[in-house]
Amino acid sequence: MQFQISPEFIEKIEQLVAEQNNKELQLHLEDLHHADIAEILNELNLDETTYIIKLLDSEKTAEVLMELDEDDREKILNNLSSKEIADELEEMDTDDAADIISELSQERQGEVIANIEDQEHAADIQELLRYHENSAGGLMAKELIKVRETWTVGGCVREMRRQAENVTRVHSIYVVDAKDKLKGRLSLKDLLTVDAKTKIAEIYIPRVDYVNVHTEGEEVARIMQKYDLEAIPVVDDLGRLVGRITIDDIVDFIRDEAEKDYQLAAGISQDVEADDSFFKQTKARLPWLFLALMGGFIAVKVSGQFEGAMVNFGVLFFFTPLIAAMAGNVGVQSSAIIVQGIANGSLGGSLTKRLLKEVILSLLNGVLLAIILLFGSHFLLGVDYIIGITVSIALMSVMIIASLIGTFVPITLDKYGIDPALATGPFITTSNDIFGILIYFSIAKLILGF
Amino acid sequence: MQFQISPEFIEKIEQLVAEQNNKELQLHLEDLHHADIAEILNELNLDETTYIIKLLDSEKTAEVLMELDEDDREKILNNLSSKEIADELEEMDTDDAADIISELSQERQGEVIANIEDQEHAADIQELLRYHENSAGGLMAKELIKVRETWTVGGCVREMRRQAENVTRVHSIYVVDAKDKLKGRLSLKDLLTVDAKTKIAEIYIPRVDYVNVHTEGEEVARIMQKYDLEAIPVVDDLGRLVGRITIDDIVDFIRDEAEKDYQLAAGISQDVEADDSFFKQTKARLPWLFLALMGGFIAVKVSGQFEGAMVNFGVLFFFTPLIAAMAGNVGVQSSAIIVQGIANGSLGGSLTKRLLKEVILSLLNGVLLAIILLFGSHFLLGVDYIIGITVSIALMSVMIIASLIGTFVPITLDKYGIDPALATGPFITTSNDIFGILIYFSIAKLILGF
Repeated sequence: MQFQISPEFIEKIEQLVAEQNNKELQLHLEDLHHADIAEILNELNLDETTYIIKLLDSEKTAEVLMELDEDDREKILNNLSSKEIADELEEMDTDDAADIISELSQERQGEVIANIEDQEHAADIQELLRYHENSAGGLMAKELIKVRETWTVGGCVREMRRQAENVTRVHSIYVVDAKDKLKGRLSLKDLLTVDAKTKIAEIYIPRVDYVNVHTEGEEVARIMQKYDLEAIPVVDDLGRLVGRITIDDIVDFIRDEAEKDYQLAAGISQDVEADDSFFKQTKARLPWLFLALMGGFIAVKVSGQFEGAMVNFGVLFFFTPLIAAMAGNVGVQSSAIIVQGIANGSLGGSLTKRLLKEVILSLLNGVLLAIILLFGSHFLLGVDYIIGITVSIALMSVMIIASLIGTFVPITLDKYGIDPALATGPFITTSNDIFGILIYFSIAKLILGF
Repeated sequence: MQFQISPEFIEKIEQLVAEQNNKELQLHLEDLHHADIAEILNELNLDETTYIIKLLDSEKTAEVLMELDEDDREKILNNLSSKEIADELEEMDTDDAADIISELSQERQGEVIANIEDQEHAADIQELLRYHENSAGGLMAKELIKVRETWTVGGCVREMRRQAENVTRVHSIYVVDAKDKLKGRLSLKDLLTVDAKTKIAEIYIPRVDYVNVHTEGEEVARIMQKYDLEAIPVVDDLGRLVGRITIDDIVDFIRDEAEKDYQLAAGISQDVEADDSFFKQTKARLPWLFLALMGGFIAVKVSGQFEGAMVNFGVLFFFTPLIAAMAGNVGVQSSAIIVQGIANGSLGGSLTKRLLKEVILSLLNGVLLAIILLFGSHFLLGVDYIIGITVSIALMSVMIIASLIGTFVPITLDKYGIDPALATGPFITTSNDIFGILIYFSIAKLILGF
């Protein structure tokens, strides 16, 4: 059942575009799912893509456009006239249309909106553009089914038929009063099972979860996940029903958030993919590497302070990468658990309690690894016991400090409204490298007295 | 509208449990959403939690149980009789019931199933238990609405009313033939807008996405996301409709997958949360730390081979943590991008092309950072130019090798069916540490000739 894209198929399409064989092209593409067409277009160059977008019906291409990568879409839109873009938007749900239009220049936005024939649709899109893209207002669509509490079930079904034409999927039927204030919801199941003359007021469910237009996207995602909602109504500051958010938009949002955290942990500062340009990849990666390099400078400086050890205890310097690596790994483990705990709201208890737990945990791990290090360094590496003891004590201390930093930093960032995921990855490893080396040599100096 | 859990409320509940004041407890809890009750139970101890689960109606507690952490749920179930568990399962959808029952011991499973009164429900649960939990069969629920292609719309609505009682949410109506083979689907919208005497065969949509019971969860998630599906029917090997998967189960799945990748990148080998026990946390963290320690041993050994440099070029040893850190960071960046590309299926092109791209990219970054390192080490750290040049050339080389390893390893793991996310985090940083130090000293030896 699944469409499988093949190199031969792509070649065929490229050839047909070259021949401008519109009839054959349409024949090949018209039955495909829009997500599949988007996959095909990803393999073509800009001219070919634009040609196909212009050729196919905008009912289809509107959905295809939504599936494309933002960068590619921008280039294609640059090749379309304002009228052509308006035709695409006409076919889209208002939330998608607003997303697309917000990618255009201010000037172009006006032109495109002026070209939309359906006045109500244009007004809805303009309304959505007013909200921040990461707020419930920015995520919602205007398409929904609403009925008045004073209607009967029969009248309601008639009205729904009319409204359903604009709505791709019927999730819930919302009940409003004469002033459009959200009163509750109706389930389709209920509509199926009661008499046509029943008043809506008698059967609607007055308890309904909703969010305000200004609620942040993360909060909307949290609520929809917690309460397992497939759609949530959005109200304005007066409590009037102005839109709804569906779970498919939130799925994308959750995935994007998770990817962002993952990338931050890996030291990549913005959404970047394997196929992005050298420039975009460098922009995302270089700042973190630069940060790590600066941290490295400090680590060199710190090591240099203990140059005196080199004559009699040169072997200590062989262990600096081990100490630094362990500090980094422990720090990342601690911070990752905290970042995830913050993200899914499962982090209870006080900061002190949490730090205490991490100390005990890393002491536990630290003692075990220190014993392994003590005997390993003696038997495997042939190091003197006094050096082994020094390195082992340092390892334990470094692990404890590293886990404390890894716990403290993300919690503190979060407290001040900064994304705690920033603290994972290069930031934690670099600062733990420096502290680790400092602690290591300080302990060595204390024990060995160089 | 949102319920806000307060310390006072928790205290009140604890007090009511202590007093065994059932009436007040029910009054306080019965109107709350099951997700909120689960949140409250998370704050109580095991005895209190069990008391409340036994007190409340199983229609409510069945959903509460699903929201609890697996560990907590296990403990609570241990305090319930087989009959009590069976009562809970009776209220659950088959997919949830199967999930719960699979957490019990083999012996207990039989007892519980024998206690389920609804024979059909029990049989459905047993059927689901046969599938691997990560397959479509393991993810699906048996609750769905299906109609025969030979029926009329009117008959269909009557039959749907009957079936709808068992189905929490009506997503799609599936159309089957006399042998239960999946033929297509009906949208509710269509049912609203056609005459009652129309035959289903005339109006159903014959194209419908579906998955096989053996399809892997990742693939189901990919298809549902790609085609923006809210539910997908599941067929057996004979093409018969046997269940459906809804997007809310997939949302959890997507989140869990993302969390798993994130944890692997941070060196945590299984699903673990901040509030888990010391033992569980140690089990998840220690193996990676042990791996890093072993890698550290090798790094010490490698450094030791270049002991000869210590007399005249001791300063080189101050730079090993810097080189190791840069190797680790570059490696993690490369592997994270590859792992994400594999996860969302956006990774095209050949391995050679991808490695080439990484070489160019890291050469670009490497040259920039090497220049900074050259001048920085001279002016900030007071290092001789010849040492600066040596370290800079080594940095460039190390960055290129690290990015190649970071790209090659996850792609290769994936090729052999191993989770590529295993390659990120400690594994990549540790191996890059070793290679980095080896390359660094080798280049230094070549240039400085110690």
